[in-house]
Amino acid sequence: MINSENATILPTIRHPDDIKRLSLEEMTHLCGEIRSFLQSSVRVTGGHLASNLGIVELSCALVYTLDFTCDKLVYDVGHQCYTHKLLTGRYADFDSLRSFGGLSGFQSPNESIFDFFQTGHASTSISAVIGFARAAKLRGEKGCFVAVCGDGSLTGGMVYEALNDGGDTDLPIVVIINDNEMSIGKSVGVIPHKLSALRLKKGYIRAKRRYHLVMDHLPRLSRFLNRTKEKLKDVLLPHTILDEFGFDFLGTVDGNDLTSLIHALQYAKAQNHPVLLHARTIKGLGDKPSVSNPEKYHSVPRELPDTTPSGSFSKEFGKELVKLGAEEPSLCVITAAMPKGTGTYLFGESYPDRYFDVGIAEEHAVTMAGALSMGGMNPVVAIYSTFLQRSFDQLLNDVALQNSTLHLAIDRCGIACDDGMTHNGIYDVGYLSLIPGLSLYAPSNFAELRDMLRFTVKEKGLTAVRYAKGGEGEFKANCFTGKEPFVELGDPGDYVILSYGIAINKAISVANSLKNEGISVSIIKLNRLFPFETESLLSALSNRSGIFVIEDVVREGSIGEKLAFLLLERGIHTKYRAFALPGIIPHGDLDSLEKLIGFDNSTIIHSIREAISHV
Amino acid sequence: MINSENATILPTIRHPDDIKRLSLEEMTHLCGEIRSFLQSSVRVTGGHLASNLGIVELSCALVYTLDFTCDKLVYDVGHQCYTHKLLTGRYADFDSLRSFGGLSGFQSPNESIFDFFQTGHASTSISAVIGFARAAKLRGEKGCFVAVCGDGSLTGGMVYEALNDGGDTDLPIVVIINDNEMSIGKSVGVIPHKLSALRLKKGYIRAKRRYHLVMDHLPRLSRFLNRTKEKLKDVLLPHTILDEFGFDFLGTVDGNDLTSLIHALQYAKAQNHPVLLHARTIKGLGDKPSVSNPEKYHSVPRELPDTTPSGSFSKEFGKELVKLGAEEPSLCVITAAMPKGTGTYLFGESYPDRYFDVGIAEEHAVTMAGALSMGGMNPVVAIYSTFLQRSFDQLLNDVALQNSTLHLAIDRCGIACDDGMTHNGIYDVGYLSLIPGLSLYAPSNFAELRDMLRFTVKEKGLTAVRYAKGGEGEFKANCFTGKEPFVELGDPGDYVILSYGIAINKAISVANSLKNEGISVSIIKLNRLFPFETESLLSALSNRSGIFVIEDVVREGSIGEKLAFLLLERGIHTKYRAFALPGIIPHGDLDSLEKLIGFDNSTIIHSIREAISHV
Repeated sequence: MINSENATILPTIRHPDDIKRLSLEEMTHLCGEIRSFLQSSVRVTGGHLASNLGIVELSCALVYTLDFTCDKLVYDVGHQCYTHKLLTGRYADFDSLRSFGGLSGFQSPNESIFDFFQTGHASTSISAVIGFARAAKLRGEKGCFVAVCGDGSLTGGMVYEALNDGGDTDLPIVVIINDNEMSIGKSVGVIPHKLSALRLKKGYIRAKRRYHLVMDHLPRLSRFLNRTKEKLKDVLLPHTILDEFGFDFLGTVDGNDLTSLIHALQYAKAQNHPVLLHARTIKGLGDKPSVSNPEKYHSVPRELPDTTPSGSFSKEFGKELVKLGAEEPSLCVITAAMPKGTGTYLFGESYPDRYFDVGIAEEHAVTMAGALSMGGMNPVVAIYSTFLQRSFDQLLNDVALQNSTLHLAIDRCGIACDDGMTHNGIYDVGYLSLIPGLSLYAPSNFAELRDMLRFTVKEKGLTAVRYAKGGEGEFKANCFTGKEPFVELGDPGDYVILSYGIAINKAISVANSLKNEGISVSIIKLNRLFPFETESLLSALSNRSGIFVIEDVVREGSIGEKLAFLLLERGIHTKYRAFALPGIIPHGDLDSLEKLIGFDNSTIIHSIREAISHV
Repeated sequence: MINSENATILPTIRHPDDIKRLSLEEMTHLCGEIRSFLQSSVRVTGGHLASNLGIVELSCALVYTLDFTCDKLVYDVGHQCYTHKLLTGRYADFDSLRSFGGLSGFQSPNESIFDFFQTGHASTSISAVIGFARAAKLRGEKGCFVAVCGDGSLTGGMVYEALNDGGDTDLPIVVIINDNEMSIGKSVGVIPHKLSALRLKKGYIRAKRRYHLVMDHLPRLSRFLNRTKEKLKDVLLPHTILDEFGFDFLGTVDGNDLTSLIHALQYAKAQNHPVLLHARTIKGLGDKPSVSNPEKYHSVPRELPDTTPSGSFSKEFGKELVKLGAEEPSLCVITAAMPKGTGTYLFGESYPDRYFDVGIAEEHAVTMAGALSMGGMNPVVAIYSTFLQRSFDQLLNDVALQNSTLHLAIDRCGIACDDGMTHNGIYDVGYLSLIPGLSLYAPSNFAELRDMLRFTVKEKGLTAVRYAKGGEGEFKANCFTGKEPFVELGDPGDYVILSYGIAINKAISVANSLKNEGISVSIIKLNRLFPFETESLLSALSNRSGIFVIEDVVREGSIGEKLAFLLLERGIHTKYRAFALPGIIPHGDLDSLEKLIGFDNSTIIHSIREAISHV
């Protein structure tokens, strides 16, 4: 177990009840222990550091205040849940965080009865607690349903759909805005700015309490004031944009002060209708490097011997964007709250006027970019594969069906490893293939990424380039000059393996093993996944004894599926196997995961060998 | 041309400039002409009546005020654009509305240079005008960018993503809330309620103007008041939830009064920063039945000789839900602003506590329902196929990856005909197949819909039933008792046609023609589209001379594609053709569209005949 020698209270917390027995002094001490435990452990396991350091007290106060036999708690986004995990029986397992078979980096109902909802994507928590509260009400159960919502999550539209739906109810919901002035980078837009204005005001809870105290005890006055109450409240009490939705704003509380938090939470819990609490926290509190650079320490990699690859697709993408920005004055770049993660901040530094960070708002990002293009600009929208799922309808209706030009840069494609199932970038080939007219490219290395980006931004229509997290593999040859939808590597073999993107490294390795066994096999590398260059592809594939496809996306909607359709309709009957991924892949290291799902080299080689020998 | 004998001014309006030459009196007269024209013409062509009657004056005032050589205008949702079409050169073609080859029922950039953005789905307009305004600014172009946003559209989350992004800019954007207290049905949630409170207040624009007049002319006072300005504004001026986002609220205007509208719009246009105007309109104004029942007259069908089928899938679904509601006390039903359209209002009438209309908020609908289920209830979410596209990420992350139980009822599957390309329900098989664990069923008639619904709501996990708009076809046999993932109709033929849902009628008709030519062909009807019952399906398909698939979804991700993959991997080499749909299908009647895209019976028969005779 990690670095727990200095902790005396933390190891004794094995159940939420254990914290309820602590004195305030002990709890304060516990917060210190958790903070130093997180600093050392997350640097070993990897994971989200700064956000978790910021809400140690809030998580303690929540476990102290809530009764999980009936109450439920959802962190939004779920990576803020480390302290919650430590306090709900998972301290002893914490060194397995984000490891294969170990604890998830997010809240996970599969992992613990104290994790109520899995929130890998932002802005879902208020919807979740409304559902929980409605279910409890219908079942005649008591309970308080709490969403802890980061300020970044407030830039996502779902939050407002939920507030609009939940606001005029009598459901026992508490929404806590965990406001650290950051989402992952600096929160953008109006809402976070409005929140920080709140920090300048004091004494809110007291004022509100007095107001309610008076109103609760003078029901006649309350009724009498009913009509003017709204106006009165505006004058007597501060308000936020969120209490406009019918959530009663209880004020701002110091989110790193246990006493204030516990009082505020107890008060909030007693309200039995939708309330809102604004908790100001300091991201990275207690860790100097995190406080001074919270975006860098938002998520830290596992400490490993120095095998860091030199560069990443994201960085190369960002650098090439800067060059293209100089050449193409109409080029605009849009990110949805991921300036660092996507590497687009480099473009923003050079061309701030043409760079738009719209917040965690993938729907708006795509539609706005579509209109930018209709207005004569040339937009590149950089979004992680998993988050682009939110823009499916917008890509279809607001871009493709309008024949607009827009260039998607799809980062973090493939298995998400440590981040786990809610972050796998393995569905994009399937859902993007449904978008009429979209051309999808997949670079296998940095050189191809640069050239594919350069090529696609000059195309009309909807284009997309999908690439992996991290660095390139051994295959560094640039097979794309803008002309080749596919290339065959080496002389045509009796058998052929078709692959693309970073998976080409696996395909080469598999092919080499087969060749060593004397099997005549070559590789066709797709540069463009679709539309197929049908006739030349069929001609290249003809007269093979077998065709095999290796790709790091789900089987459904995969290139292997589409190619089989083409072959069968054209009457090309051959041995055929496609190796792709299942729809659910847990977290862990790539090797373990690939073995688990049968996507490791030796399983693939074995299957191909079997297919070949099969008559 | 339709009923234009009484119109004297309307026929003379052939270009937006023509309206600018009219006097106020003439324009008032024109509005009357438009209103009576719409009442008679929409009853002939079919289309959205009540919403268009409500905004005749607003559309006139907009065309009068804006200069479309630089300004742009987006209606949200786009079916409010009929008056706009009449005033921008499309009066003479209006009898072709929603017909094959005729005018679209929505704004359509393909149709006119005065339609700037296609808005078939709600809540996209503010994103669009932000994109337009940014493009103009970067290109050094002048212009004013106006979004007319129905109050229902304000229940969709994208609006808030856009407001958050656009609110702190200096872009010349005008957002007009067209507030008729309805979305399609009665608007639900807090926001529409807040809007109606605004109606009680008067003199807003005047107060606001005076305020700005003072502040603009007393910059020192303005700076001096800077800190307290917010508070001062709260007292001096009314505010809405939307101006919290940084849009300057200009007040409420009578949206059916030309003079007020023109003044307000001119003032709004002169602001050169994001402003918000609240226009109160009466849905259906001038048409008694529409005013008293705007939901019924929201969209009216084409007047045709009485061939109305007795009932619809939606109605049968609603009726069966009521029965199930009595049997299953945990059954809950969720709609996203479509109580009538989905037939779920029937359940709502019987079980109001278990019925949730969440607004035009498909993302929230799915996530909230997922949590309802985790809380012990059994949710049915009824959404049109085209709008469910908005919930793809939520279905995946918030339901499937959490192993939650949720039952989708997917209405309006297939070609949308009159509504056109933004409403085609033809992508769902593709994107739903990517959701791990989802079981998808397709009833071919009312009896099967009832039994599939009854069966799926008792299942655990994520299930979906997809069905067509309107009535059933000739095939009324119930082939589903809960056990059969597929059935073969008649004795196995040398050839087999595989089909499902309402398309089974086409498959039968095609099969009958082929049989008449002496070809031995039978039909396999899928009840469950996926997961495949792989072994029994393969066994049923074995030893056929050819397999043909007929389905009303896009080719990409279709059952035909998935089946080909299965067959080829299993080494079943046979003649194979799949008949599915292209990704873009315009509006019109079904016969014309099917011929256009080669999905008509004779084209399919011809292709099958050719495939059979091919050696």
